[in-house]
Amino acid sequence: MPDRTQAIHFAHQNQTRFLDEMKDLLSIPSVSTDPERIPDMQKAAEWLMVELKKRHCTNIQLMPTPKHPIVFAEFNCGDPSRPTVLVYGHYDVQPADPLELWQSAPFTPDIRKDYIFARGASDMKGQIIACLKAIESIQAVGEFPVNLKFLFEGEEEIGSPNLEPFIRSHVELLKCDMALNPDSGMIAADIPTVVYGLRGLAYFEIRLRGQTTDLHSGIWGGVVENPANVLASLIAGMKDADHRVTLPGFYDRVRSLTEKEKAEMSRLPMDEAYYLQSTGARALAGEKGYSWVELASTRPTLDVNGLYSGFTGEGSKTVIPCYAMAKVSMRLVPDQDPEEVRQSLVKYIEAHLPATMTCEVLIHAGNPASFTDLNTPGVKALEAALTTVYGKQPVFKREGGSIPVVLHMKRLLGAESILTGFGLPDDNLHAPNEHLNLPNWFRGIDTLIHFFYNLVK
Amino acid sequence: MPDRTQAIHFAHQNQTRFLDEMKDLLSIPSVSTDPERIPDMQKAAEWLMVELKKRHCTNIQLMPTPKHPIVFAEFNCGDPSRPTVLVYGHYDVQPADPLELWQSAPFTPDIRKDYIFARGASDMKGQIIACLKAIESIQAVGEFPVNLKFLFEGEEEIGSPNLEPFIRSHVELLKCDMALNPDSGMIAADIPTVVYGLRGLAYFEIRLRGQTTDLHSGIWGGVVENPANVLASLIAGMKDADHRVTLPGFYDRVRSLTEKEKAEMSRLPMDEAYYLQSTGARALAGEKGYSWVELASTRPTLDVNGLYSGFTGEGSKTVIPCYAMAKVSMRLVPDQDPEEVRQSLVKYIEAHLPATMTCEVLIHAGNPASFTDLNTPGVKALEAALTTVYGKQPVFKREGGSIPVVLHMKRLLGAESILTGFGLPDDNLHAPNEHLNLPNWFRGIDTLIHFFYNLVK
Repeated sequence: MPDRTQAIHFAHQNQTRFLDEMKDLLSIPSVSTDPERIPDMQKAAEWLMVELKKRHCTNIQLMPTPKHPIVFAEFNCGDPSRPTVLVYGHYDVQPADPLELWQSAPFTPDIRKDYIFARGASDMKGQIIACLKAIESIQAVGEFPVNLKFLFEGEEEIGSPNLEPFIRSHVELLKCDMALNPDSGMIAADIPTVVYGLRGLAYFEIRLRGQTTDLHSGIWGGVVENPANVLASLIAGMKDADHRVTLPGFYDRVRSLTEKEKAEMSRLPMDEAYYLQSTGARALAGEKGYSWVELASTRPTLDVNGLYSGFTGEGSKTVIPCYAMAKVSMRLVPDQDPEEVRQSLVKYIEAHLPATMTCEVLIHAGNPASFTDLNTPGVKALEAALTTVYGKQPVFKREGGSIPVVLHMKRLLGAESILTGFGLPDDNLHAPNEHLNLPNWFRGIDTLIHFFYNLVK
Repeated sequence: MPDRTQAIHFAHQNQTRFLDEMKDLLSIPSVSTDPERIPDMQKAAEWLMVELKKRHCTNIQLMPTPKHPIVFAEFNCGDPSRPTVLVYGHYDVQPADPLELWQSAPFTPDIRKDYIFARGASDMKGQIIACLKAIESIQAVGEFPVNLKFLFEGEEEIGSPNLEPFIRSHVELLKCDMALNPDSGMIAADIPTVVYGLRGLAYFEIRLRGQTTDLHSGIWGGVVENPANVLASLIAGMKDADHRVTLPGFYDRVRSLTEKEKAEMSRLPMDEAYYLQSTGARALAGEKGYSWVELASTRPTLDVNGLYSGFTGEGSKTVIPCYAMAKVSMRLVPDQDPEEVRQSLVKYIEAHLPATMTCEVLIHAGNPASFTDLNTPGVKALEAALTTVYGKQPVFKREGGSIPVVLHMKRLLGAESILTGFGLPDDNLHAPNEHLNLPNWFRGIDTLIHFFYNLVK
């Protein structure tokens, strides 16, 4: 029996234990944006270090950054002529709020039918565990075919502020032939997917201040301008009735889709019904002149992610607030530049801000879009692995999300990222009741076993 | 020595004790909008009942309503031919948040220089105490000149939802010749003021829902409409660039100012500098074609009082929120009708709401504007009292705030309200660091002593 068949057999025999280990990691509330979760961030990182030790890694390190540490490790297969794969992952998760909308506690993993429910199940602790368990399954039955490095960061959900400097200052340590990045996903449980393009992200916080204090809306209403009203007007003016962003020059650098790309996208099984069902939206809405799948992956966006002003409690309070805040982010496509987008936003605000207000624009993230070359050995190995496990050719698609590390890997290490992952579109990423489809996750482990074997002819 | 001189002397001798008693009442956090403060509401009501007992009242009752109880009491001067004055007040206060902006705890009254700082100091526990201490001062030196009734409600800061039905069902009990309502204020510490007009209030909560759950803005951004963006557009569209409200028919019933009224208002010492200084605004802004004082008291407004959507914590979260909420209120002037305004708002939203959203409009308050007849004995008695204490004729003005009870008193009891109060425009009503100017408060007690004596020739 060839090694790979034995490894797959091992994986199948150990599914229950693999699941228990995923539960362990999901139970740690490693929310990177929350200062109170710093001890849990440490705990999640240490959990991974113990696991890497079991995977026979060497040089396992918890490497500090100005915020959350990076877990690094190496595995030497004994043959330096074999390729080196850098496995990327992030052990941080999004905040779980609003808590009251969860049907089970976000950090108490709960299996219901074919799904495990927990914050981070799909994005992306489950994906990290799938990689580690694929590696374990191969190691359990014979020699591991390639060299490995591991880079697990703790800041992906806050825009990876320290990742680029870290990679830049550890180029030699991180040197590799390709990166395996399982932070992507599949279109559907029966459609194996290879992702080759990602949108970028520019994320801002707009803070408007009017007077120095909240004022009584009866006594002063009519003469004092209201920052919440002004903020609403600013946001409203950022898009026109056709859902196009109005910030000056916003579309100047947007690359048009080629006819070939348009044809490829039209073959994806992602029509209006798909988006309606996946999102629970009553109706879709988007920029005119593009198909839904084009809009969701190849066109830039502008979304309010958060709004706050004045009195938001139960009942009423008759104030003119002195402060209003909006978190506003744009998904970027080739060749938009995050810094140019920031300048455009600032210019727009300056042009429309009344003399009654001051405005501050904070930057939470700024990453351009990225592309992967489809003709590399890594992509070919993944394509073959997916074909074997799912019994059909994968589809190739661009994705709407942002994975800044893909860009850094290419620019700083010269490494293409192989984008995979076994989450599904309705996993409720970043939302209450995040979950992961377990049958697909087990197929994911099988796929990754094939992938590693496929890298060596 | 005439009674009134003795009474004034008594008041001056007892200022420190009066202040201590005000502190007692201010220490009770009777926030009517907060369900957790129900025991404190009860405590504040009981405090007043004890005080009314000391003022020789009879028939003292804590009368239940569907929400917060009403304190009622009567004082009989022994001569039924004398007028009966119904003293109105509210023992509830606005919420104290944002707490971090208070320099001293909102419910631990703190005297700094000429001011006492506490939630409710100016609005309006301090004003209630001024009335009670004026009454005490007169009672201490002789016969009280008129009959009294007391109605202290606990729901003014939440729009007095149960006051109108209460008055309607207790017309005989509340029967009076006039109402004394000290919930108004003065233009400045050296400008005695009689208020004869108040704006009304229509207060709504607009709740927009898109999808059933928050969605990842990378994966779904571009095809799913964002309730926070839609809410911003709805709010932005409610006013035009000239600060005029665009809701259909909003101005149809607005009564124009007479030339006489315009002339009277132009004499008020409330110019741009006054409003800038009182509000801390960088610049003023308002509807074109009106003076600032006209805008603040005789023109209708539309203000956002609260905004909430998505992620408002520290850092970033890349969600398309499923929900967005705005508290929006309008100050109304004669002869606008709150129900017509509600219909207009609903019509506007229906005309502009995209098919991607559902919208719910809650009503928190709906009261028309009100006017007081200046030729009644009560207004004359107040005018004379103010002239005596401040050494100058009072100014007559309309005010921007809303006091629904004034309307109910007129409509249901046939009683004009005498509007007074000794708070000042920069008292931070409804805002952090609410305070009361103590020298003016002591003059207020003197004024009220004269007022009661002036009611009887």
